Amino acid sequence: MPQVSVIMGSDSDLPVMSQCLNALERFQLSYEVLISSAHRLPEETAEIARNAAARGIEVIIAGAGGAAHLAGVIAALTPLPVIAVPLSVSPLGGLDALYAMVQMPRGIPVATVAVDGAFNAGILAAQIIGVKDPLVRERIIAYKKELANQVKEKNERLQKLGYKKYIAGAEK
Amino acid sequence: MPQVSVIMGSDSDLPVMSQCLNALERFQLSYEVLISSAHRLPEETAEIARNAAARGIEVIIAGAGGAAHLAGVIAALTPLPVIAVPLSVSPLGGLDALYAMVQMPRGIPVATVAVDGAFNAGILAAQIIGVKDPLVRERIIAYKKELANQVKEKNERLQKLGYKKYIAGAEK
Amino acid sequence: MPQVSVIMGSDSDLPVMSQCLNALERFQLSYEVLISSAHRLPEETAEIARNAAARGIEVIIAGAGGAAHLAGVIAALTPLPVIAVPLSVSPLGGLDALYAMVQMPRGIPVATVAVDGAFNAGILAAQIIGVKDPLVRERIIAYKKELANQVKEKNERLQKLGYKKYIAGAEK
Amino acid sequence: MPQVSVIMGSDSDLPVMSQCLNALERFQLSYEVLISSAHRLPEETAEIARNAAARGIEVIIAGAGGAAHLAGVIAALTPLPVIAVPLSVSPLGGLDALYAMVQMPRGIPVATVAVDGAFNAGILAAQIIGVKDPLVRERIIAYKKELANQVKEKNERLQKLGYKKYIAGAEK
Amino acid sequence: MPQVSVIMGSDSDLPVMSQCLNALERFQLSYEVLISSAHRLPEETAEIARNAAARGIEVIIAGAGGAAHLAGVIAALTPLPVIAVPLSVSPLGGLDALYAMVQMPRGIPVATVAVDGAFNAGILAAQIIGVKDPLVRERIIAYKKELANQVKEKNERLQKLGYKKYIAGAEK
Amino acid sequence: MPQVSVIMGSDSDLPVMSQCLNALERFQLSYEVLISSAHRLPEETAEIARNAAARGIEVIIAGAGGAAHLAGVIAALTPLPVIAVPLSVSPLGGLDALYAMVQMPRGIPVATVAVDGAFNAGILAAQIIGVKDPLVRERIIAYKKELANQVKEKNERLQKLGYKKYIAGAEK
Amino acid sequence: MPQVSVIMGSDSDLPVMSQCLNALERFQLSYEVLISSAHRLPEETAEIARNAAARGIEVIIAGAGGAAHLAGVIAALTPLPVIAVPLSVSPLGGLDALYAMVQMPRGIPVATVAVDGAFNAGILAAQIIGVKDPLVRERIIAYKKELANQVKEKNERLQKLGYKKYIAGAEK
Amino acid sequence: MPQVSVIMGSDSDLPVMSQCLNALERFQLSYEVLISSAHRLPEETAEIARNAAARGIEVIIAGAGGAAHLAGVIAALTPLPVIAVPLSVSPLGGLDALYAMVQMPRGIPVATVAVDGAFNAGILAAQIIGVKDPLVRERIIAYKKELANQVKEKNERLQKLGYKKYIAGAEK
Repeated sequence: MPQVSVIMGSDSDLPVMSQCLNALERFQLSYEVLISSAHRLPEETAEIARNAAARGIEVIIAGAGGAAHLAGVIAALTPLPVIAVPLSVSPLGGLDALYAMVQMPRGIPVATVAVDGAFNAGILAAQIIGVKDPLVRERIIAYKKELANQVKEKNERLQKLGYKKYIAGAEK
Repeated sequence: MPQVSVIMGSDSDLPVMSQCLNALERFQLSYEVLISSAHRLPEETAEIARNAAARGIEVIIAGAGGAAHLAGVIAALTPLPVIAVPLSVSPLGGLDALYAMVQMPRGIPVATVAVDGAFNAGILAAQIIGVKDPLVRERIIAYKKELANQVKEKNERLQKLGYKKYIAGAEK
Repeated sequence: MPQVSVIMGSDSDLPVMSQCLNALERFQLSYEVLISSAHRLPEETAEIARNAAARGIEVIIAGAGGAAHLAGVIAALTPLPVIAVPLSVSPLGGLDALYAMVQMPRGIPVATVAVDGAFNAGILAAQIIGVKDPLVRERIIAYKKELANQVKEKNERLQKLGYKKYIAGAEK
Repeated sequence: MPQVSVIMGSDSDLPVMSQCLNALERFQLSYEVLISSAHRLPEETAEIARNAAARGIEVIIAGAGGAAHLAGVIAALTPLPVIAVPLSVSPLGGLDALYAMVQMPRGIPVATVAVDGAFNAGILAAQIIGVKDPLVRERIIAYKKELANQVKEKNERLQKLGYKKYIAGAEK
Repeated sequence: MPQVSVIMGSDSDLPVMSQCLNALERFQLSYEVLISSAHRLPEETAEIARNAAARGIEVIIAGAGGAAHLAGVIAALTPLPVIAVPLSVSPLGGLDALYAMVQMPRGIPVATVAVDGAFNAGILAAQIIGVKDPLVRERIIAYKKELANQVKEKNERLQKLGYKKYIAGAEK
Repeated sequence: MPQVSVIMGSDSDLPVMSQCLNALERFQLSYEVLISSAHRLPEETAEIARNAAARGIEVIIAGAGGAAHLAGVIAALTPLPVIAVPLSVSPLGGLDALYAMVQMPRGIPVATVAVDGAFNAGILAAQIIGVKDPLVRERIIAYKKELANQVKEKNERLQKLGYKKYIAGAEK
Repeated sequence: MPQVSVIMGSDSDLPVMSQCLNALERFQLSYEVLISSAHRLPEETAEIARNAAARGIEVIIAGAGGAAHLAGVIAALTPLPVIAVPLSVSPLGGLDALYAMVQMPRGIPVATVAVDGAFNAGILAAQIIGVKDPLVRERIIAYKKELANQVKEKNERLQKLGYKKYIAGAEK
Repeated sequence: MPQVSVIMGSDSDLPVMSQCLNALERFQLSYEVLISSAHRLPEETAEIARNAAARGIEVIIAGAGGAAHLAGVIAALTPLPVIAVPLSVSPLGGLDALYAMVQMPRGIPVATVAVDGAFNAGILAAQIIGVKDPLVRERIIAYKKELANQVKEKNERLQKLGYKKYIAGAEK
C-alpha cells in the first residue's frame, strides 16, 4: 500500500513531477503516481481524494499549472495533508498556478511549495511522514547532512581551483 | 424553472454578487441564487453542476475570491457556459482570483469578466440567452441605448454647468 | 451563413487563433475568419461589429495582443456575446492583453479566456450555441467524455509503463 | 475654437481629470471637456475623433480606467497626437488602465503619462503646442522656473526650521 | 510538552497569528507561541529550530512579513515540517512575504499557506499530526462537516430570506 | 538642423531604437541620433537637453532599459516634449523601464510609448510636428491609410487562401 | 561638516524620511537634510551631487517615489555610496519607485533598501561609516543587542501574559 | 586578509557572481569568494557572518536566487554593510529574489542592487571602502571617467558611421 499519492493534471507535467518521485525514492517512501485532472476527469479525481485516507495514503502531492485547481479540489475531499506544486507551464510563468494554489480559503489549506518545486514536495512529504516514523526522520537528517557536505565540497573545490578554473570546469 | 444559476462561495460575496442579480432582473431573466463552495461543500457543488443542464439552467455564473476554483470546478461537470466573477477579497486584490479563474486549461473554458464585475456577468448571461431569445436581445439593445443616453446626458450637463459646478454638484 | 465570427488584429495572430478554428470545426459550427484591427482598420471593424447580429452571427471571438482593444471595441457595437482571447505577443507576456480585455467597464462585458487560450474560445462559443442547439450540446458532452478518456488512457499507460519509460517514450 | 480636447469615459473621472484642465488654464490654452465612452457611446466617440483635426483641435487628452480603450480608439481615427491618462479606479490599482493604454500596437501610438497623472497630461499638451507657439513655450519655461523656486523655498524653510518643526507645521 | 511551535517575527504579527492558535485549540493540539526573529534574534531563533525535534515538537508554524526569512531559516535547522504564513504588513501587500517564503531552494521546503492564512496554518498542522493520530484526524473530518454545514445553513437562510433581506440582515 | 533628437543610453539599444529612425525617415523628418547616458555621461546628457530647444530641435525621443532615467532627466532640462521608449533589456522584461519612465512626478511629464515601441515613438514625434506642419500631418494621414490597406490586403488574402494555406505560406 | 547628506524629492516625503534622521541621530552621525528634486531642480541637484565628496560628505541617502530618479541621478555624479529609499506615494504602491531605483545599469550602483525603509537607510549609512570608524561600529553592535533584547522582552511578556492578554494590552 | 567577502548560495551562481569579482579586481580590492548557503549550510554561514568583522572583512556581498535569504541571514549576524545581489534563477525571473532581499525589516538593512547586478555590487563595495581609502575613491573617479569615455567613443563612432553601418558592424 503506497504512503504517498502523487497526482498531476497532465502527462506533460511528468518530467517536472518525476523529481518528486526521485525525492520519495531517496527517502524510501512507497508511492503511487497518477494522471488525473480536476477539470477533465473530475469525478475520478474526487474519487481518488475521497478514498485516499481509507486506502492508507498518508500524504497527497498534486502538481498542476495555469488555473491549478487540482490540489484544492483534492484537499476539499480528504482529511490528509495535501502538498501543492505550481507548475510554470503557461505564458504567465507559473504565477497563475502559484496564486491558484496558495491562496486557498479559510478552512481548506494546501501546503504549497515553490513553482516547479517538485523535488521539495517529495522532501516535505517525507518530513510529514517523519512526524510518526523515526526512520524517515533519520533519513531527512542524513539528507540535510549530505546537502551540507555537497556545499562544503563545492566550496573546497572553489578554494582550491579559484573561480576562473571552477567556471571553466563547470562549462566543460 | 430558473434560466440562470448564480453561485457564490461565501455569503460575504453576496453584496458584490447581488449586482449580478440586479442585472438579471433588468433583463427579466429568471434566476436562482445559491451559496455553495468548491472547497467547503464539494459534493453538493458537484451535484449542482452535474444537474444544472437537466434542470433547464442555461447559464451558470460563479463568483469567488482567492484561489477561486468554483467556476472551474463547475465547468468541469456541465456542458453549460460558465461565467466567472473574480472577487477582490484577499490581500492580493483580486489578482489571485482572476488568475485562478481565467487561466483554465485546454478543454474546459470559463468566461471570465472583470474583478468584482458581477453586474457585467449578468449582462453577459443575457447576451448568451439572447442568442436564442430575441426578446432578451431586444432588451440588450435597449440597455445599450440607455447606457449611451446616460453618457450623453452627463455630457450635456457638463457642457451646461462647466466642470467646476459639475464636480461641486456631484460632491453634494 | 456562419454562426461564429472569428476576428483577429493581425495575421501574425493566426497560428494561435487557428486553434480556435480547429475547435469550431470539432463542434461542427460554421464560421468566418477575418483579420481586422481596432486601431489600424477602425471603421471596418466597427462595421463588422454593427452588422454581425443582422448577418446571423451568433457569437464573436476576438483575439489580440498588447493593448488589446479589439474585443471591447466590438462588444460596444453589438448585442452578441463576445469572447476575448488575450495573446502573449508583447514583452509583458500577455498580461497587458489580459488586463486590456478582462477589465471591461460596467455595461459592456466580454467573456475572457486564458492567455493564448484560442482553443477554449472555440469551445466556449460551442457552449453558448449549445444553449439553443441540443445537437451542439451533445457534441460538448461527447467532447468532455473524450477528454476524460484521453486522461484515463494516459494514466493507464503510465501505470503500465512506470514513469521512467513513460517519459522516455514521450521524448522520442 | 478650442486647442485641446479633453475626453473622459465617465463623469466619475472628472475630479482627477479636472487637474488636467487646471494645467491647461495655467498655460492659457483653450480647451473643451467632454464625457464620452469608447464602450458606452462608441459612435459619438468615433465622430469626435474623426472630426477633431478638422475642427482645429491640436491635441487630444483621454482619461479612462480599467480596460482603458478610450485613448487608443481615438488615436485610431485621428492624425493628432493623443495623450492617455490611466486612472486608478479598479481593484487592480490602475495597472490595468496603464497596460491597456501604453501597450498600443505598431502604427498607432498614444502618449501615456503616469497613473492619475492628469496634471502632467495638461503640461504635455502645452509642450506639444509649444513646438509651434513660442508664447506657450515661454510659459513652460516660466513654469519650470516656478517649480524650481517652489522646491528651493521649501528647502530654505526646512533649513531654517529644522525637520521637526517643518513636519509639525505641515501637520497643522 | 507542546506538539506545535508557533513562532512569529514581531508582536505586531500576533493579532493575525492568533487565528492560528484558535485553530490549534479547535483541534485540541498543545502548542507554544514564541516571538523570535530571524534577523533581530538570529541565534535564539536558530536554537529554537535546532532543539525543536528533541523537545518533542512535531510541527513548526512560522509567520512573518516583508523579506520573510523566518520559516526558511528554521527549516534549515530542523527535520520537522515547517508551515509558513506570509503576512501582508508591507506596502507590497504580502507579495514580498509570499515570494520570500514559498520560493525555497531545492532541499529545504517550507509548506506555505495563503497570505495572512494563519487559521489554515493551524488546520494544516492538525492534518500533519493527523497522519499519526487518528483522534486528530477524526476532528478534521468533523471540522470539514461543520464547515459544510455552515455553508448549507447560510444557503438555506438565503433561500428563505431572499438576497435583499439576507444582505440587509448581514449589515445590521 | 535636425527636428528630432533620438537619444539612447547604450549602443546595445540601437537595433530596437533604429525602428524609431525608420519611422522618422518614413515621415521625412530630419533627425540626429546620439548615444548618451543619464548615468554614465550625465553632464553631456544635461548639456544636450539644455541646448536642444535653442538648436531648433522640436521633439526629443529617449530610449533606455532598467532604471530608465534618461527621458526624465532630459525632460527636467528642456521645455520640449520628450517621448520615452522603455526597453526590455533586463530580467524584469521591461516592466522596470516602463515604471521608471511613465510614473514621472507632477510637473515634468514624459510621453511614454509601449515597451520596445520605438517605431511608435517615431510616429508620435511626427504627430507632434504635424500640429504645426500640414505636410507632415498629410503623411500621417497617408500612413494610416496604408496601414488600413495592409490589413485589408491581408484579410483579402486570408479569404482567398483559407487559414491553412495562409499559415503554410507565412511559414515558408 | 555633516557626514551624511539626506536628500528627498519633495517635502511630502519628509514624514517617512525623518525616520532616517532618527536613525542617524541614534548612531550619533552628523547629517544635513535637503529637499531637492532630480526633475524640478535638476541643476542644483547635480551641484549637490558633484560637490558632496569635496564637502566631506561620506554617504548620501536619497528618498523618492514614482519614477524615482533622484538616487540614480546623484550616483551618476559622485564617487560616494548612495543609498536609495523607494517611497510608496503613487497608486502603484512603491513598486514603481523600487524598480526605478534598484534596477540601475552596469557601472552606477545605488544601494536600495525596502519600500519606505527610511530607518534602515540610516542604519546602512552607519554600517558604511562603521567601516572606518570603530566607534560607530560599536554603536551598531550595541543597537543589534538592543534589538535582540526588545524581541526577548516581548517574548517574555507574551509567555507571562498569554496571547489573549498580550493582544488585549496592545490594543489599549 | 581580504577586504571583501563574496558569498553565494550555490556554485551555479558563480558565472553571474564572477562579474562581482571582476569589479573588485578592477578596483584592486582583496577578496575571498565562498559558496555557502543560508539553508543548506546554515551553521557555517552563521559562523562566516559572525566572524567576518573580526577577520578584518569590511564589506560582505551575498548573491542568491528564489527565496534569497542569504544576505539577510548574514546581515543579522554582522555589523558590516551587506550588499545583496538578487539572481534571476527561478521561473519568477528574479522578482522573488529581489523581494526576498530588498524588503528587510526595520533594524537589519541590506544594500540591494539590480537583479543579476553582480558587477555593480563590486563597484558599491569599492564606493563603501572608498569612504575610508582615498586611493580606492580615486579609482572610482577614474572608472567613472572611463565609463563616460566609452559612451563618448561609441557616440563618436555612431556619428561617423551612421546607424546602419554601426549596427551591421556590431552584428559581425
